[in-house]
Amino acid sequence: MSTAESAPGSGEQQDACRTREVLDIVGDKWSLLVVRNLSQGPRRFTELKRAIDGISQRMLTVTLRGLERDGILTRTVRNVMPPHVSYELTPMGRTLREATAPLLKWSIEHLAHIDAARATYDARDRVPD
Amino acid sequence: MSTAESAPGSGEQQDACRTREVLDIVGDKWSLLVVRNLSQGPRRFTELKRAIDGISQRMLTVTLRGLERDGILTRTVRNVMPPHVSYELTPMGRTLREATAPLLKWSIEHLAHIDAARATYDARDRVPD
Repeated sequence: MSTAESAPGSGEQQDACRTREVLDIVGDKWSLLVVRNLSQGPRRFTELKRAIDGISQRMLTVTLRGLERDGILTRTVRNVMPPHVSYELTPMGRTLREATAPLLKWSIEHLAHIDAARATYDARDRVPD
Repeated sequence: MSTAESAPGSGEQQDACRTREVLDIVGDKWSLLVVRNLSQGPRRFTELKRAIDGISQRMLTVTLRGLERDGILTRTVRNVMPPHVSYELTPMGRTLREATAPLLKWSIEHLAHIDAARATYDARDRVPD
């Protein structure tokens, strides 16, 4: 990204900083997993909670709110008893889903390689920095 | 890890859980930015620190170590004075770079849309959950 060295304050540099801001939301494991889990259509909170292994109630709430604020998903409340709240990707959210697909695919395809790399790393004697 | 609810122990479900583990490392804003900044070739710690706006010394150290452990980058120390330490993507890291490119591109392209969505969200009266 950056060209701070060569062109301080340039538009490109500002975009680089802004990219970081966007990544605060979308470049986050939980956001990636929520977006993936909404790719088949609307889901309720409890459905997402069940589908995303290891996410806490609070983290899911925070993640959904961030994604809603960013226009990635919509939150719909139906006034029935008990209230029915569901989450659905917006058109922009669906383009994000497409943009994240290669990273999720990569993660699945490289599980074995990463396991091997970790084992090698953990086995070696390492001088602390 | 697991989501015994729907399909206990199925291969697909296990992959989903493992994906989360991989995303602990690669689905992280700082990792995405480090990988992007290594796409043009090896970089030293201080070069990365300067290029990645807002990253702390400690966070960069932790991120680099995680990526090294996962086989995404290599850390090379040259015994000169002062010691010269540089980081470079491995072949697997370069495939990760390609897989993350659409997400980074999306982030840049959607900055304005996200700003607009945030403004709308923040302006509206909202009933707390």
